[in-house]
Amino acid sequence: MSKINSILSKVNIVLVGTTHPGNIGATARAIKNMGIRNLKLVNPKEFPHETAYFRAKAAKDILDSAIIFSNLEEAIKGSSIVVGTSARSRKVPWPLKTPRESSQEIISLINNSDSKVSIIFGREDRGLTNEELSLCSHHVFIPTDPEYSSLNVSQAVQLMTYELRMTLLSHLEVNLSQEWDVPLAESQEITNLINHFDQIMKEVDFYDQENPRQLLTRVKRFFRRSGIDHMESNILRGLFSAIQKKLK
Amino acid sequence: MSKINSILSKVNIVLVGTTHPGNIGATARAIKNMGIRNLKLVNPKEFPHETAYFRAKAAKDILDSAIIFSNLEEAIKGSSIVVGTSARSRKVPWPLKTPRESSQEIISLINNSDSKVSIIFGREDRGLTNEELSLCSHHVFIPTDPEYSSLNVSQAVQLMTYELRMTLLSHLEVNLSQEWDVPLAESQEITNLINHFDQIMKEVDFYDQENPRQLLTRVKRFFRRSGIDHMESNILRGLFSAIQKKLK
Repeated sequence: MSKINSILSKVNIVLVGTTHPGNIGATARAIKNMGIRNLKLVNPKEFPHETAYFRAKAAKDILDSAIIFSNLEEAIKGSSIVVGTSARSRKVPWPLKTPRESSQEIISLINNSDSKVSIIFGREDRGLTNEELSLCSHHVFIPTDPEYSSLNVSQAVQLMTYELRMTLLSHLEVNLSQEWDVPLAESQEITNLINHFDQIMKEVDFYDQENPRQLLTRVKRFFRRSGIDHMESNILRGLFSAIQKKLK
Repeated sequence: MSKINSILSKVNIVLVGTTHPGNIGATARAIKNMGIRNLKLVNPKEFPHETAYFRAKAAKDILDSAIIFSNLEEAIKGSSIVVGTSARSRKVPWPLKTPRESSQEIISLINNSDSKVSIIFGREDRGLTNEELSLCSHHVFIPTDPEYSSLNVSQAVQLMTYELRMTLLSHLEVNLSQEWDVPLAESQEITNLINHFDQIMKEVDFYDQENPRQLLTRVKRFFRRSGIDHMESNILRGLFSAIQKKLK
């Protein structure tokens, strides 16, 4: 495997709730063209399907090795950066990056560590749910014409994976990024951290009774985008446990 | 029409000898997503065709106004720059650019003149002929994985038109970065937050007596780089106060 493809082997492309098998096939081809081979499918409507294989052309191996999941959290387990693609603006804004900016962040991470990345693409008709988007470190917004912003899912995958490859090609010439001393926290660790924080907020009656959900959304957003590492996450968890012990 | 789309109205996308009508429909959608509306078809095998309309989704207007030609020279008449996409290396090398480099040249031209541009995409199975490629000002090469370089034609169109739009947005200095709903925390706020965190750690006897300073250093590093905003910082401070109150 080339050095580029070896680095790109840390990237997982995750399709959530895809309706048309043709889009799954086109995605397989699109990612293989850019040197990415890990395809995960969360609740695809029809898969395996001959239309997927027809559209994949010479990327049938990507479909053969695609892994099917029944929930998104399982699919992204082990990833330090989870990126969601979204056309919607949200009430509580999440960090929003262009594919180019997002690729720079992703390549800086995987170029110097064993960390893994998941990039999530939603349903053809309605994208990702707010719940799914809140699992993400940041969101990617493709700067389409606002008059017609609905991209085909395999086209969105093609643009994002192209930017990853372009960024990596330019990085391998001059590497400016820095080694980090500790691996970044994985998605599940951040979920556990958020849940622990939520418990503490309940135990000390911190919740605003009138609008409890927005508070938790902000807490989630903060930790998801913070780039917290494994040790820092453990420090916070340890502190939370010490607080709970003291409160009893 | 927006200023961006007005400039992009000087770009023509030319598909030569397309075999599958689905690819013509997917191309219509791809270019409309990026604000480009001029589609020219040279000897399409089957067009108009219902599959083209199905794949075009809300870009049916692009198909309705597509112009059909029986030879390429007619289709590119009036263009100052003609760009051909090619995966092949040629015996006599032609100027070869990446989509990004090519877009910079194209946008520099059309941003300041009435000049027109044609970008040509070849047949699904064998691209453009040497004859067709020799009509071009330069060729574009998409840096795919050399192990599998055959892109779907509508994907190649999507990448090239995305780069045009990205280049134009940066030329016009359109700010793609996102408005955040709350200002970021100021340095002093972060200092206060860290000091409050430090107090809590002391009050719950969380400090490792043997190495207290490294723990605090890690806490400082985390909050300093986290990009925490004013409201998130207040949420944490409020929680810390609630914890202190409960402990008393």
